Amino acid sequence: MENHTIKKANISIDPMGTPTSPKGFKASGVIAGLKRSGRPDMALLVSDLPMSAAGIFTRCLFAAAPVQISRNRILSEKPMRAVITNSGNANACTGEEGMRNAEAMCEKVATLLDLSAEEVLVCSTGRIGKPMPMDMINHGIDLCVNALSLKGGQQMVEAIMTTDTREKQGSVSFCLPSSNKEVTIGGTCKGAGMIAPEMISPKSTRLHATMLAYLTTDVEATPIQLQKALEKGASYSFNNITVDGDMSTNDTCFLLANGASGAKLETQADKNMFQAALNTLMFNLAKAIVMDAEGATKCVSVTIVHARSIEDAKKAVRAICNSLLCKTAWFGGDPNWGRITAALGYSGAMFDPSVVDIYYDGVPVVQDGCAASTPESELAAIMKNPSFSIKIDLNDGRETTWMMTSDISYEYVKINAEYYT
Amino acid sequence: MENHTIKKANISIDPMGTPTSPKGFKASGVIAGLKRSGRPDMALLVSDLPMSAAGIFTRCLFAAAPVQISRNRILSEKPMRAVITNSGNANACTGEEGMRNAEAMCEKVATLLDLSAEEVLVCSTGRIGKPMPMDMINHGIDLCVNALSLKGGQQMVEAIMTTDTREKQGSVSFCLPSSNKEVTIGGTCKGAGMIAPEMISPKSTRLHATMLAYLTTDVEATPIQLQKALEKGASYSFNNITVDGDMSTNDTCFLLANGASGAKLETQADKNMFQAALNTLMFNLAKAIVMDAEGATKCVSVTIVHARSIEDAKKAVRAICNSLLCKTAWFGGDPNWGRITAALGYSGAMFDPSVVDIYYDGVPVVQDGCAASTPESELAAIMKNPSFSIKIDLNDGRETTWMMTSDISYEYVKINAEYYT
Repeated sequence: MENHTIKKANISIDPMGTPTSPKGFKASGVIAGLKRSGRPDMALLVSDLPMSAAGIFTRCLFAAAPVQISRNRILSEKPMRAVITNSGNANACTGEEGMRNAEAMCEKVATLLDLSAEEVLVCSTGRIGKPMPMDMINHGIDLCVNALSLKGGQQMVEAIMTTDTREKQGSVSFCLPSSNKEVTIGGTCKGAGMIAPEMISPKSTRLHATMLAYLTTDVEATPIQLQKALEKGASYSFNNITVDGDMSTNDTCFLLANGASGAKLETQADKNMFQAALNTLMFNLAKAIVMDAEGATKCVSVTIVHARSIEDAKKAVRAICNSLLCKTAWFGGDPNWGRITAALGYSGAMFDPSVVDIYYDGVPVVQDGCAASTPESELAAIMKNPSFSIKIDLNDGRETTWMMTSDISYEYVKINAEYYT
Repeated sequence: MENHTIKKANISIDPMGTPTSPKGFKASGVIAGLKRSGRPDMALLVSDLPMSAAGIFTRCLFAAAPVQISRNRILSEKPMRAVITNSGNANACTGEEGMRNAEAMCEKVATLLDLSAEEVLVCSTGRIGKPMPMDMINHGIDLCVNALSLKGGQQMVEAIMTTDTREKQGSVSFCLPSSNKEVTIGGTCKGAGMIAPEMISPKSTRLHATMLAYLTTDVEATPIQLQKALEKGASYSFNNITVDGDMSTNDTCFLLANGASGAKLETQADKNMFQAALNTLMFNLAKAIVMDAEGATKCVSVTIVHARSIEDAKKAVRAICNSLLCKTAWFGGDPNWGRITAALGYSGAMFDPSVVDIYYDGVPVVQDGCAASTPESELAAIMKNPSFSIKIDLNDGRETTWMMTSDISYEYVKINAEYYT
């Protein structure tokens, strides 16, 4: 454990952790030439041992080719060995050729590492609808394989970025109650725009950002255990963030366990500890996305309490977090809560407007659907903070939900009016 | 008919028409002092004869006090005589006091004009959650009554504006087939932001930007005839526009008929002619809102064809028109159609992505879910136009819908980060 480790209950948090923090993982990140900027754009993650694998994916009907392929691999519940990723091209809306190219990426990795292609997962992020430059990709895979190292997680963290301005990474370590053996979960993610993930199980009958997230662990667990833990963790993290309301064709989050620690999830207490640590890491990674959202100056946490149903709560929280008028008011530091009530009112959630209360960082803003007596200057002062919370009490039921989001600034418009990878 | 009249089939269109273009209407617009800018902020519309009245209203649960009152008046199907409007304060989220104030506005108008309060409709637009400054309002009503004139429609057009930069007005005239008598429909509307109306009948079991629209006519018609015509007209106009996806607490559209022309809707041919003329006027007014959208540089018409169901078509078109990434790409003149496919894919509409075709102004962009062969420079040239159309063919059914929307620019963010009326 290094100096920057923070102790939280029985979980040690290392904000500089990476996917190679757990035992038995190697990784690399290289420059293949896909990005105009010349920054790293391909990453490879490999486990020495076969990994149990879980994954959740975008529900966008235009799911990218790598999503379609990885989804099938996860559905097979077979052991995995590697994940190949490129940034700079999403390989989405690329038809049969896109599918062949994504498959060819897996095959090339498999050949060089003496694996089968079915043991290789694949992710892409970048511009939609462009053919994959396979010469560059193939050259990048050669470089990735040669660069694999036990410390390579940091290179991977950098190579998956697109409009991100900061690396997003971390790890958590803890001892399992049953065996007292140490387990580590490492992770990284990327994403700054086209962020509104609602990632779902590949088993969902619904078909499926770009938000990519990779979680690795050296615990021993079954694919079914991992899938359950991942979906639960996502419901407290990645699936509760939105930057711009635009879900991507490529959203993918993997949880990969290679058992290299020799520790096994045996008891319910073990599973609870693992879930708590996973939730902590996933929450921190999801928050890092919102804090680095394209052009953002504010991180706003919105909570709905006492809703009639969880569906009402979710409709309400999403309407507020995706409202352009709320987001521009936050950017302007304008306590204009009328935009929040308007969004609540059109969200489709059912509630009684005359009993709604709203708080900014615990300070009353709206009481019984009308202005509370707090002076506007006090509210404006709260909104000057880089982070603040909004609580909406519908006083109409028992259900609760929350989301984290960002404001929308001139810079967001600039980035997205001029974006060419 | 003046010089700028345009002949369209048997309908004469006057882009400078106003709510006092039809016979028997007076109006006024005055400065009551509600706006910091000192611009006109109150308007009164009065009919010499009792009017049949129809109305549609926001479905926002936080419907403003004037919406609640006007909704009940329309539901009564009783004759109306006047409409009082203020800009600069929405009288929304103002509780019981707000209701008393909106009612008091009607009562004051009634007293001065020797009417009953139940014959007066009321509209407000502006900031949400602020108490109505009733001294100013009462003074404004005095001024409005004194200023009433047959040419006062133009003053009304100006007084209802908020962030609008241009007046929105027009009239249509035509002869009824059955009697050959001339009928005029006049209208005005306002709105530039918080525009995503889905106005519904006051009879809807669902409760219900501000978008305000006033349509007057000198034909004789029943409230039921008018309500039907208004709802049909809205489904081709105001309910098909979105600027920012934020529906207002105050959206209101009235259609008021005083019968002063002596012409009556007798035959089906009469009703068809009236509907055609009304649709034309409403479409032109709705388009004027999009053309004057806050900070907008582009007007984009999006059509979905061959959807499985009308619900699928509507989900698809709304997702695209409200997508921040699509709207910023349009602002940047970036033919990035991947953002359109992403929005289609997450919209919730069901379709087969592998057969989707997309066209910009008729030029193929996407074919069978992948890039068409049109050079990107040709697409970029289309996007330089101030208006262009996007057609999405889902090739999956028989249903069609469309919306008109704007791009999102730096200026939109500026206006809404700094908006204080």
